[in-house]
Amino acid sequence: MNPTSAASEAFRAIDVIRKKRDGGELSRNEIESLVNFYTRGDIADYQMSAWLMAVVLRGMTRAETAALTDAMLRSGEVLDLSALPAKKVDKHSTGGVGDKTSLVLAPLAAAAGVMVPMISGRGLGHTGGTLDKLEAIPGFNVNLPVAQFRRVLETCGCAMIGQTAEIAPADRKLYALRDVTGTVESPYLICASIMSKKLAEGIDALVLDVKTGSGAFMKSDKDAVFLAELMVETGERMGKQMVALITDMDQPLGSMIGNALEVVEVVEVLQGEGPEDLRQLCLELAGWMLHLGGVADTVAEGKKQSEKLIASGEALDRFRQMVALQGGDLRAIDDPKKLPQARHTMIVSSPKNGYLAALECEQVGTACVILGGGRERKEDSVDPAVGIVLHKKVGDAVSSGEALATIYYNAEARAVRARQLLEESYQIADSPAHEKRPLIHRVIRNSGEKN
Amino acid sequence: MNPTSAASEAFRAIDVIRKKRDGGELSRNEIESLVNFYTRGDIADYQMSAWLMAVVLRGMTRAETAALTDAMLRSGEVLDLSALPAKKVDKHSTGGVGDKTSLVLAPLAAAAGVMVPMISGRGLGHTGGTLDKLEAIPGFNVNLPVAQFRRVLETCGCAMIGQTAEIAPADRKLYALRDVTGTVESPYLICASIMSKKLAEGIDALVLDVKTGSGAFMKSDKDAVFLAELMVETGERMGKQMVALITDMDQPLGSMIGNALEVVEVVEVLQGEGPEDLRQLCLELAGWMLHLGGVADTVAEGKKQSEKLIASGEALDRFRQMVALQGGDLRAIDDPKKLPQARHTMIVSSPKNGYLAALECEQVGTACVILGGGRERKEDSVDPAVGIVLHKKVGDAVSSGEALATIYYNAEARAVRARQLLEESYQIADSPAHEKRPLIHRVIRNSGEKN
Repeated sequence: MNPTSAASEAFRAIDVIRKKRDGGELSRNEIESLVNFYTRGDIADYQMSAWLMAVVLRGMTRAETAALTDAMLRSGEVLDLSALPAKKVDKHSTGGVGDKTSLVLAPLAAAAGVMVPMISGRGLGHTGGTLDKLEAIPGFNVNLPVAQFRRVLETCGCAMIGQTAEIAPADRKLYALRDVTGTVESPYLICASIMSKKLAEGIDALVLDVKTGSGAFMKSDKDAVFLAELMVETGERMGKQMVALITDMDQPLGSMIGNALEVVEVVEVLQGEGPEDLRQLCLELAGWMLHLGGVADTVAEGKKQSEKLIASGEALDRFRQMVALQGGDLRAIDDPKKLPQARHTMIVSSPKNGYLAALECEQVGTACVILGGGRERKEDSVDPAVGIVLHKKVGDAVSSGEALATIYYNAEARAVRARQLLEESYQIADSPAHEKRPLIHRVIRNSGEKN
Repeated sequence: MNPTSAASEAFRAIDVIRKKRDGGELSRNEIESLVNFYTRGDIADYQMSAWLMAVVLRGMTRAETAALTDAMLRSGEVLDLSALPAKKVDKHSTGGVGDKTSLVLAPLAAAAGVMVPMISGRGLGHTGGTLDKLEAIPGFNVNLPVAQFRRVLETCGCAMIGQTAEIAPADRKLYALRDVTGTVESPYLICASIMSKKLAEGIDALVLDVKTGSGAFMKSDKDAVFLAELMVETGERMGKQMVALITDMDQPLGSMIGNALEVVEVVEVLQGEGPEDLRQLCLELAGWMLHLGGVADTVAEGKKQSEKLIASGEALDRFRQMVALQGGDLRAIDDPKKLPQARHTMIVSSPKNGYLAALECEQVGTACVILGGGRERKEDSVDPAVGIVLHKKVGDAVSSGEALATIYYNAEARAVRARQLLEESYQIADSPAHEKRPLIHRVIRNSGEKN
């Protein structure tokens, strides 16, 4: 191995690896040096991956997590939006199936007078991604340079782009390494990755939507709550207002899954329609954004304002304004048929009478990926037109032969595979379930557990 | 990261990393693929180091340890000495200070009719290395090609060389990676590293000398016993006769530390003289080598034979024969003054009357490294002439001003640093200790604990 990989006499990567391996707590300086030397190539990948594995298995204290987040954040450009005349608030979701709330929330909160500088990601695994959904709108440009991003934000109060090369380069390099070394699955590393990117947006407050259930990365409430508390405290340590909602992802959110289909449902919600669960979650999250953004005294007040802004058409106007500013074709917003259309449809029918007891959510997401709505490999392109429309949600009565879902597809072979997976995803019971999973499992404002 | 780092469709390094990370047991095939793909460069260092850290923190079963040892062993050439007319037996020590037993044992066992094909290492950290000691003999060549090694072995029954490029290349590559990624300290990885190299010698039996105490890598008896049991069982699983002696390294072995000085002490022992602890340990280890080598019915019988071979001068003759065959200058064996000589000496005196209660053994080893007798950095060369001669061992009475040790040095500044460290290493008590640590703590023949 290259002896120059020890970056300097004063700091040796091996010492920090050993300390974490043996369960010690690293100082802010040690973490900062590790991240900085790694980002500029003075620490080798093989040293960093050994350290990452030690973190996965040994964990981190709250202070270490905040130091790591801070070092990654400061590895690149941090937007300074302090001159803008309103509070900057963003929302981040840990990823789910049919979760299109970002597209509703950014214009809705902007219409209420909060500024939303939103930097989003693409679909990952079985989950969808905000950028892929936005790109279903013909012409919509998610790759704005920072100056133009700022101009859109100043003009309409919200702007939505992808991560730029300037933002948190340490995270990009670390994420690529974690992806191939089995070191993705650590709440501490997940927290630092998410928070470093989000805080680089120059925001004052952040609303986290941490998903739990069969379609979430955190399958259990316990894991979701742990991550949520970690992120809330990390943000608070860095001087941000934070809240995390633990929300249900045991079945898809709303009825539509697939990029263009989800844009249709977004417009429905902004028109005061759309499925109840999606609508409710948007209002809840918006209530928090408005409250933390200082334009509503309480969350309930924020929800009320949001309902009014939807009813008055102001939220939809704001969405149209942002789409236009980012190069999108407004005809596709005003007429769903102008969005990319799949050539064929196929019905998934119920095999018997009964009640929909469960809908294996990760499998539904995977079915959409198989159709081409997500990526099986990183280099794959996404087909915006394909997807799935659910006609029944958990708890609904179904009769034999009735349509459970419609598959929108362009390739027969993919549709057949997707249908099989969907058929396996449905559980039909003879009687209705006693209990219904709540949409909001818990609200976490301060983890309380300081370390 | 390079997507081709996943070596084939069937085997993916990431799956094996994840499995070990989550505490699973890897199959023989998985371990074999990991080692083979890594050795030929189809798995990246950054993936291997993540796996190594997972092994350090999660451990391995006995079956996994044997599979790893076997895969590393078969990554290179395995000597086939089955045609030679005697049992092949080697001894391996986990490393200590003043431990020169190998130089006594190889010719002694050979004189008894056992064949000793010994492949040794260099000093590591504060410990000495057999190769460095042999090279203190002018002309001695430790880099024989395999064919010549075999010829020396056939001619005089023993031969001593360093690791060749052909032997266990997986270990060489893995060790270099472990060294810079904080993954050296795992009994499973230490076991596989030692055993893969030793079993590549084509031996029938192996006597392990596992050191315990302040000068050993395993400071506690518990750790030493754990490693010893692991190595004994791994060797037995691979069809070898095994024994491990847990021996004391709480103070240096014998009186002389430093490469040329240790050769002097070796010759003394082969002449029936030398310090009692060194002499006893050599006889004990030789007893086992002769017993496992089939030339003595019992260990006690093996010890008796060894004593006779020393008294008759046959063991020393065999040593001279090997030295000559490997190019060494016999005048240096017959007259210690022909060995490299340090230019200066310096005395470390006792500050008071009392009894030598303890001698911090790792520090004594480090003092010898500081003098130039070992390497502070890998690329350093070793000064064969320098070292330390101890005039008192633990338990001895000392009076104020009496010489505790003599430092042999060539550079004043180094000697001053070494003396300071030595002075700090001595503990002088007012009364003698109640108990004396035994030389042999335990003998381990079969760990009993199969997994």
